[in-house]
Amino acid sequence: MQDGSPEQIILNTQPLVAGVPLKSLEGDQTPAELFFVRNHYSIPQIDSSSWRLEVSGAVESPFTLTYDELLKMPSREVDVLLECAGNSRASVQPSIEGLLWDHSGVSSGSWKGVSVSQILKRSGIKGDGQEVLFQGADQGEERGDVGKSSYAMSIPLEKAMDPDTILAYRLNGEDLSPSHGYPIRALVPGWYGMTSVKWVTAVKVVATPHDGYHQSKYYVFQKPGDEDGAPKSRVSTMGVKSLITWPGRGDYLEKGSHLIRGVAWSGKGPVLGVEVSTDDGKTWQGADVKPSRSAYSWQSWQFEWKPKSSGYFLIRARATDTAGRIQPAQFDWNFRGFANNSIHVVPVTVM
Amino acid sequence: MQDGSPEQIILNTQPLVAGVPLKSLEGDQTPAELFFVRNHYSIPQIDSSSWRLEVSGAVESPFTLTYDELLKMPSREVDVLLECAGNSRASVQPSIEGLLWDHSGVSSGSWKGVSVSQILKRSGIKGDGQEVLFQGADQGEERGDVGKSSYAMSIPLEKAMDPDTILAYRLNGEDLSPSHGYPIRALVPGWYGMTSVKWVTAVKVVATPHDGYHQSKYYVFQKPGDEDGAPKSRVSTMGVKSLITWPGRGDYLEKGSHLIRGVAWSGKGPVLGVEVSTDDGKTWQGADVKPSRSAYSWQSWQFEWKPKSSGYFLIRARATDTAGRIQPAQFDWNFRGFANNSIHVVPVTVM
Repeated sequence: MQDGSPEQIILNTQPLVAGVPLKSLEGDQTPAELFFVRNHYSIPQIDSSSWRLEVSGAVESPFTLTYDELLKMPSREVDVLLECAGNSRASVQPSIEGLLWDHSGVSSGSWKGVSVSQILKRSGIKGDGQEVLFQGADQGEERGDVGKSSYAMSIPLEKAMDPDTILAYRLNGEDLSPSHGYPIRALVPGWYGMTSVKWVTAVKVVATPHDGYHQSKYYVFQKPGDEDGAPKSRVSTMGVKSLITWPGRGDYLEKGSHLIRGVAWSGKGPVLGVEVSTDDGKTWQGADVKPSRSAYSWQSWQFEWKPKSSGYFLIRARATDTAGRIQPAQFDWNFRGFANNSIHVVPVTVM
Repeated sequence: MQDGSPEQIILNTQPLVAGVPLKSLEGDQTPAELFFVRNHYSIPQIDSSSWRLEVSGAVESPFTLTYDELLKMPSREVDVLLECAGNSRASVQPSIEGLLWDHSGVSSGSWKGVSVSQILKRSGIKGDGQEVLFQGADQGEERGDVGKSSYAMSIPLEKAMDPDTILAYRLNGEDLSPSHGYPIRALVPGWYGMTSVKWVTAVKVVATPHDGYHQSKYYVFQKPGDEDGAPKSRVSTMGVKSLITWPGRGDYLEKGSHLIRGVAWSGKGPVLGVEVSTDDGKTWQGADVKPSRSAYSWQSWQFEWKPKSSGYFLIRARATDTAGRIQPAQFDWNFRGFANNSIHVVPVTVM
């Protein structure tokens, strides 16, 4: 199985962090070998025959599943895009802490797996169960920690019981690759990617949100002046966002007719519309948006542009969603630049 | 002679564009092998024994110089920093056209050479001579051009007659390396680097500013809506600017006392002062600034900071110059992000 592609944009090698070029975001499915990767530790090499899922915590009947047993359970396939919480933060001003993703930390695919709700129906849930924790096999040491700990994230029980929240074993019809969580990863549609824990080996029902490093210290919104121990809100549902996939930054275009293209999505259901501006934001016109394939897929859009003169242009696209949200000119700045859905601007020259 | 270093940040290989890490900006001289490189075409390999300088145009007595003859002329040594016009544009919003320099396109050194005024005194200048053109041996084809042309830039006669405008043959006491213009490059202090033409083989006195691609189309300030043929102003004198060299973006600091460090400069003479803010720009305090070594050198500065609490901080530094200019929060946006002297902001976490 091919894991990775020469077209990937490598941001970091250890752990592997790799993006997908904007032009490869077109189409309904990002090829698995190009799908963005944001790992936190080394990739664990897991043999599916020895893999076990431990279901425990505030459950009536703890149990353990093998890979073959999981694959025999009723399956669910859903089109879901994932976006890294840090996507698009390379150009955030003031500059932020963290790897400088341009716009390459987002991808879409068709995922097949077993609903977490199926697993929890089998185990039963005790009354004090409020969150569901996914624990990965990847481990490392974080600042302030003593010893190694696993990458782990919990989500509210209600979100876990959504039938589209699955333990996935296939992406675009193939087994997951090692960099994407082979044999099993969580998939939490509508949320930024950090809760779609890879290499899942344990599902635990717990009474309170997990307080591990990534959930309580890293994937949270921080502002300057915040003290380290101050209460903070976690990164969760994706904003409404569109990206322009063509033309690219700095392209030279001939005069004539051009189809500006892009993708748009929201963490709160389908996109209602996409508007495009080619005059530095003075006026906006509606683009043609493809219907959504699922509540969690992105939607391709296009807009015909006939520049009347040669010169320098800024192309902008902004999406609105059915929840009434509109993509902002400037997102709500935070210390790590998380959840940046500021309007994408592409400078082009018409010759 | 070593040309280049593993510490360089390679932005492009053909032509070579390479930056210097922020931490290496400390000290009066950037080591020659780290000095930033912004080439436009392939590096010409020139043998100094066959190199000739042709002095022509609106002059009384055209003549040709050999390398040995140039080295026998009265020399001048001057401390000069060079900054690429595109430096610091990686995070400009809206995003711009061009290579994404972070802050690595600036360096300082001690340059030795012959004043251009010495050359022009020998040739004499005719009454219609208004600009002095430096022509490089590097060649390439640009959009809209027919055939190859040399990289070339002209500067006003008055600037050329400044004795600190030199044809340089040494950087920090050593012959120029091929990537920095061996055997001879122009050095135009106080201006962005694009007029310090490398591999100079011709100096021509001309009546009007050169209309080649780089001078009339590329290194110019463009705004959205500008037509391609519209009048435009060229990039010339550097703004007033400071950069923070320590701490780095995303650093974790212990509580206690820290020396924030940086460099500051202006294209219009020495820096008057540098102020530092550690509270998201609410208050500013003066830093200790080293005296300038020349009108064209950068000045190191430092500021003692004792954070009182743990948490998340944005450190800012802004310089003022003796011409009365102050470094702005946001520079005047233009299509290629040239001359970005927006205040540098460094996010750090105090543990």
